Amino acid sequence: MAYEFKLVRRVEFNETDAAGIVHFTSFFRYMESVEHAFFRSLGHSVFMTNVDPPVGWPRVAASCEFSEPLYFEDEIELHLLVAEKKEKSLTYQIRIRKLNADPPVEVARGRLTVVCVTRDARGQMRAVPIPKAFASLVRVAPASMLGSGKSARRN
Amino acid sequence: MAYEFKLVRRVEFNETDAAGIVHFTSFFRYMESVEHAFFRSLGHSVFMTNVDPPVGWPRVAASCEFSEPLYFEDEIELHLLVAEKKEKSLTYQIRIRKLNADPPVEVARGRLTVVCVTRDARGQMRAVPIPKAFASLVRVAPASMLGSGKSARRN
Amino acid sequence: MAYEFKLVRRVEFNETDAAGIVHFTSFFRYMESVEHAFFRSLGHSVFMTNVDPPVGWPRVAASCEFSEPLYFEDEIELHLLVAEKKEKSLTYQIRIRKLNADPPVEVARGRLTVVCVTRDARGQMRAVPIPKAFASLVRVAPASMLGSGKSARRN
Amino acid sequence: MAYEFKLVRRVEFNETDAAGIVHFTSFFRYMESVEHAFFRSLGHSVFMTNVDPPVGWPRVAASCEFSEPLYFEDEIELHLLVAEKKEKSLTYQIRIRKLNADPPVEVARGRLTVVCVTRDARGQMRAVPIPKAFASLVRVAPASMLGSGKSARRN
Repeated sequence: MAYEFKLVRRVEFNETDAAGIVHFTSFFRYMESVEHAFFRSLGHSVFMTNVDPPVGWPRVAASCEFSEPLYFEDEIELHLLVAEKKEKSLTYQIRIRKLNADPPVEVARGRLTVVCVTRDARGQMRAVPIPKAFASLVRVAPASMLGSGKSARRN
Repeated sequence: MAYEFKLVRRVEFNETDAAGIVHFTSFFRYMESVEHAFFRSLGHSVFMTNVDPPVGWPRVAASCEFSEPLYFEDEIELHLLVAEKKEKSLTYQIRIRKLNADPPVEVARGRLTVVCVTRDARGQMRAVPIPKAFASLVRVAPASMLGSGKSARRN
Repeated sequence: MAYEFKLVRRVEFNETDAAGIVHFTSFFRYMESVEHAFFRSLGHSVFMTNVDPPVGWPRVAASCEFSEPLYFEDEIELHLLVAEKKEKSLTYQIRIRKLNADPPVEVARGRLTVVCVTRDARGQMRAVPIPKAFASLVRVAPASMLGSGKSARRN
Repeated sequence: MAYEFKLVRRVEFNETDAAGIVHFTSFFRYMESVEHAFFRSLGHSVFMTNVDPPVGWPRVAASCEFSEPLYFEDEIELHLLVAEKKEKSLTYQIRIRKLNADPPVEVARGRLTVVCVTRDARGQMRAVPIPKAFASLVRVAPASMLGSGKSARRN
């Protein structure tokens, strides 16, 4: 059972803004991209069509604290940890580190809560239990890894 | 029958990049937003569900020439002209003018070709004739308005 | 002195995703766009160059809770309330309501904390007190308007 | 001297739209990302600060033709070819192929023209010759590789 995933990528130009730094909304893109890579690492897609009924994972809460700016072409590590696992939802903590710093430094820390939903015939979304085929692969990270939130950021 | 539409909007921060100017992909966003406003002005949505079968309008070609940069909070006019109307497609010419310049100046000129499609049971898209309810509302702009392309930009 | 601002806009196509709804990062774009409109309503830009030294307003925290999906062409009201005002930072509560529902419904509620910074000769950002010319225009919204967070969403 | 570069990546969720496919503006993002990777492969950044004066590369023309849709998580190859090299500008042809198709298929073909500029003291951009340190590394692709445009797409 997995509780974490790491992805390394480079800041692209379209992710920056006229302040010369990465636009804050791009950090949320990054958070989503590591979630989807985590799903793929377990043999699943966030568009989960290999279960009956098919399910999706809309976000119900997203937050991020930004401690340092990122710049074009910075190399970053996205580190996802499963922080909570409920019957119908998952919460991730996601740490964003700038690797091309000496030493590498955490520049942002976010949190995403996603709910497992299916759609009825009219397209309305309804929360449902996480399919067993996927739930059996995921567990919560050890408390020692999740730190104590904000105050842990610089540790 | 309509052959043009104008929309005025302001450059938003998330549309800029680290060069301090509007990112070139944002001009394509602008082009699409004026197309959709043109459809709405005729009582339709580009997701056309009030016809049978429902149709959509994927892009098959998009181009833009950029002559001046745009900056955060610039006020811009998007001027759409219908340049071609075929059985199953439309082509627009779209001129982007910066209004907070003295005099206002054209900063970019683009072109979009969109095809009317429906989807079969498997979700495959297939080009179909433009529904009469919409086709009857749209005509090609007078040739005198469409200019002669690039060389007309500064006229 | 102002403590709120409202902006009405329509969901654009590029703000949606393949789940058929508005992508969660677009809500953060919306939150920023109403902040910038609030600044303009007070005669300022978030790129504040009419003060010495010039200041900018990077985000240090952003969060949003999503209660209902938004769709292409929905009409939305963005309601910014100043929730906190400190020497060097502002925090906004931002409510997003879908107007084309009967009755209109709050679909998301977010929070942004922004810090007033200037840049030194090497481009490093440093927090500074909010310039008086701007600080004198802004005050915190009445507590009765700010609600009690999550639990207030449906009130 | 290099005249081409290939980059493989996967379609991310934020690049899709409510039609269920990759939004057309994302293809332009892709085109830019392979250009920047091409620069990096030659030891340079598109923000070229290791030459005097520093230069940048704004786009003056961008176009793309779309022949097949792309979907979330498709694996794509971006193939950049240098199509023209002038004193102050470069033009690329960029082919986008979907690799998770059998056989892989070209889904779009685009073209970008970028100009080498420097900025004067007031921030105005002015076209300048491509710095020798970079110009000496780049040459035009063989005509046989550039094909004959549209009609070559299916070859």
